[in-house]
Amino acid sequence: MKLATATTPRAMRRMSERLRGRSKTLAFVPTMGGLHEGHLSLVRLATKSADRVCVSLFVNPLQFGPSEDYARYPRDTKRDLSLLAEAGVDVAYVPAAEAMYREGFASRATVTGLDSVFEGASRPGHFAGVCTVVLKLLHAVMPDEIWLGQKDAQQCVVLERLVADLDLPIRVRRGPTVRESDGLALSSRNAYLTAAERAQAPVLYQALVLARDAARAGERDPVRLRERIVRHVVTAPLARLDYVEVVHPRTLARVDRVEGDVLLLVACRFGSARLIDNLAFRAGAGEPA
Amino acid sequence: MKLATATTPRAMRRMSERLRGRSKTLAFVPTMGGLHEGHLSLVRLATKSADRVCVSLFVNPLQFGPSEDYARYPRDTKRDLSLLAEAGVDVAYVPAAEAMYREGFASRATVTGLDSVFEGASRPGHFAGVCTVVLKLLHAVMPDEIWLGQKDAQQCVVLERLVADLDLPIRVRRGPTVRESDGLALSSRNAYLTAAERAQAPVLYQALVLARDAARAGERDPVRLRERIVRHVVTAPLARLDYVEVVHPRTLARVDRVEGDVLLLVACRFGSARLIDNLAFRAGAGEPA
Repeated sequence: MKLATATTPRAMRRMSERLRGRSKTLAFVPTMGGLHEGHLSLVRLATKSADRVCVSLFVNPLQFGPSEDYARYPRDTKRDLSLLAEAGVDVAYVPAAEAMYREGFASRATVTGLDSVFEGASRPGHFAGVCTVVLKLLHAVMPDEIWLGQKDAQQCVVLERLVADLDLPIRVRRGPTVRESDGLALSSRNAYLTAAERAQAPVLYQALVLARDAARAGERDPVRLRERIVRHVVTAPLARLDYVEVVHPRTLARVDRVEGDVLLLVACRFGSARLIDNLAFRAGAGEPA
Repeated sequence: MKLATATTPRAMRRMSERLRGRSKTLAFVPTMGGLHEGHLSLVRLATKSADRVCVSLFVNPLQFGPSEDYARYPRDTKRDLSLLAEAGVDVAYVPAAEAMYREGFASRATVTGLDSVFEGASRPGHFAGVCTVVLKLLHAVMPDEIWLGQKDAQQCVVLERLVADLDLPIRVRRGPTVRESDGLALSSRNAYLTAAERAQAPVLYQALVLARDAARAGERDPVRLRERIVRHVVTAPLARLDYVEVVHPRTLARVDRVEGDVLLLVACRFGSARLIDNLAFRAGAGEPA
């Protein structure tokens, strides 16, 4: 089937109703375009999981701070649409910013607490922007499930909370982080890296793996685990660390002891690029062999 | 048909799907119970407007301040259900507070600006509580239209904004304020009035009518219109005015000149009861004869 496109909430809703008909399931993958293999892996998971798939392409101004990279964020809608058509997606939702935020727009959705730590602390208003746009997208698309990338771990936790709290009948699902062969997590923002920065950026994932291995070897102190990550990242002279955290993967609360389910979070600048990465694992009791 | 009841979002959603079938329209009237003729007039409007009608009964803790009347707010679910059955309502949504706000609940919907003036200034967090619960109710009921009472004029404006901003495919409709024969607007909170307070409470509506008549007679100064209301309300010794405002009915911005569409807002305490009332009219150019 040919890829259809919708550019307004109303058109998207009609499309969604037509696609679902009497009994088809619909999966949704929200993106800001600039599609890479990380997005496409989510699309493939969505395709396997549901009868119909919708992908949105929308660089959401509401989730960028005034000094952030909204203007230069990679946009190539023509290329994105052709990738989605190839991947067998049924409909692309490509709203214009004017259709999303009309004059007088004043509403926000927030998830108190979860939205003001880590990425939320570094990027004030970011998660309010994310929650608000995702709620709008969900109201237009009305999917059975939404697919999110584990690369944005805090975003996953925030949106899982939002969907559950607001009684949306939608399953939130996560796809694993896709990485370059040297471990760098795929991100549209990798395009900002110079060759020298790109060569050093894999320290983030390397540091996460070193910390995970230390935890598996018995390290139970989150402070020492954090130090382990910092020590490795600073071996890259171009790295400017923003934060490193050892938290519970669902509550995002800092852990007192590295045991059970643990999530390592890291955010770091390389030149003009701000990159994030994370690693979830189980340590200690109940750990798989 | 017999009145059905649902007590969880999931049960409500199933009920909604069954009620709507292939092509029936569904109207929704959210209430906090304690049903009076004001609510029932909305139910009748909903019944005339749509094939099926759902009414919710839920005293929403999130919209009450810590020193407000959540605990003593009138509750009589048995009586309410019997009134709804009589009125031909198809389904009552009666969720338990525990089903609505589970452990870890952290999400809020807000309408910046509109939610922090007038009622929002007097009752911090009130409209965030209203917006959040209405969004949850709408997600569970998924109606074609929602009916709101003009008595809560600012609430109407806030929710119209929320529904439009968030791309919900739902029509927001208003029913007129229902009044006692002496002009007092019906409200569950009238039950808090002593006999002496009850006797004086009609000054609110009288003052609004005096101001409207003055505007129709040519008064164009909102300050003088406001004074007109204050002067009349203070003739009631038990009245303690909270605010009087002359605003635009859609933006809630204070007007510089009383011309065109105008909304008068008043909030006033009588003893332990806090009452609100309002009057919308057209003044000057284009005024109906």
